[in-house]
Amino acid sequence: MHIHNYINDNVFKNSFGSSNELPFPTYHKKIKKNEIITPFGSIEDKAIFLVEGIIESAIENNGEIKIIDFVFPNNFICSYTSFLMNSPSDIQTKALTDCKVEYILKSDLEKAYQNSIVANKFGKHAAEQFLIKKIKRENEFLTLSAEERYVNLIDQNPEIIKSIPVHKIAKYLGIHPESLSRIRSKVYF
Amino acid sequence: MHIHNYINDNVFKNSFGSSNELPFPTYHKKIKKNEIITPFGSIEDKAIFLVEGIIESAIENNGEIKIIDFVFPNNFICSYTSFLMNSPSDIQTKALTDCKVEYILKSDLEKAYQNSIVANKFGKHAAEQFLIKKIKRENEFLTLSAEERYVNLIDQNPEIIKSIPVHKIAKYLGIHPESLSRIRSKVYF
Repeated sequence: MHIHNYINDNVFKNSFGSSNELPFPTYHKKIKKNEIITPFGSIEDKAIFLVEGIIESAIENNGEIKIIDFVFPNNFICSYTSFLMNSPSDIQTKALTDCKVEYILKSDLEKAYQNSIVANKFGKHAAEQFLIKKIKRENEFLTLSAEERYVNLIDQNPEIIKSIPVHKIAKYLGIHPESLSRIRSKVYF
Repeated sequence: MHIHNYINDNVFKNSFGSSNELPFPTYHKKIKKNEIITPFGSIEDKAIFLVEGIIESAIENNGEIKIIDFVFPNNFICSYTSFLMNSPSDIQTKALTDCKVEYILKSDLEKAYQNSIVANKFGKHAAEQFLIKKIKRENEFLTLSAEERYVNLIDQNPEIIKSIPVHKIAKYLGIHPESLSRIRSKVYF
């Protein structure tokens, strides 16, 4: 899927039409496995739509990296706070596999926001989707055990098991790899 | 402050103008201290702008209430996931003090989203602001101690100390009231 289809399907429920032009240009790029896309401290200048591959986003605390998100195809990813506030990024995004992405430059998007209702509907939708994801993760942390959160994660993204190393899944769940091994043996055998 | 000023100041950086009409009606209401505004399990049908007072939002887990947000004047509050997805609310919002609010009905807002760029700019801004708050809280939970989070909370909202009972602040920080008492004696004496 590409950004045009995403906007047609999700923002306009198929009423945008294939002949309508997007109010901003988009660019395509391939990213190699392990390449850092947005480094800590940089100012985010683009919103990436993931076409193929997996991206992780992480924060750093006293030298320790904590994974806060895995991103799968047909989703947007950027250092959102940096993008919105022009502040140095407190997250790092990195390709976990070889990736294909399509992206929008922040400068183009901001120009489009001035007069385009399509651009504003898209920006509203993107912020809302990211917000729903964040609220869900907060609620899961506050109400579910690590085991329940693991089961949810695998249910919603079965490809995680074959594509992401166990120590990274443990980092995302906020538990030790040994605790995750115990959970995995309990849940699947 | 009221919604018209908020949109002029924050969404349009003072270019909206006092003579322009909002693309949706708004309503005013007084809410008594301890009144539940949005109950657990209800479908959120309005976005509230807090004019005066303090509102808390909380989730429930096995009979235990966990406070996830305190809302102060000049901010919007609603059960966002319920509002966006038409799903039963997993949060409860409640007036911590007598409150004055101005609100927008979801049905009016959705009508305005169809054709009004002003409504879409407003909706985008509201989602972005709420997202920035959520990301900040997630990062603080992952990188700061309870003591550091308490100091941040008080720095940003000094009125919390005189307006909100200690046991509620402890619930928000996710710690026992006794731990908070230890932190308070350490930080302020």
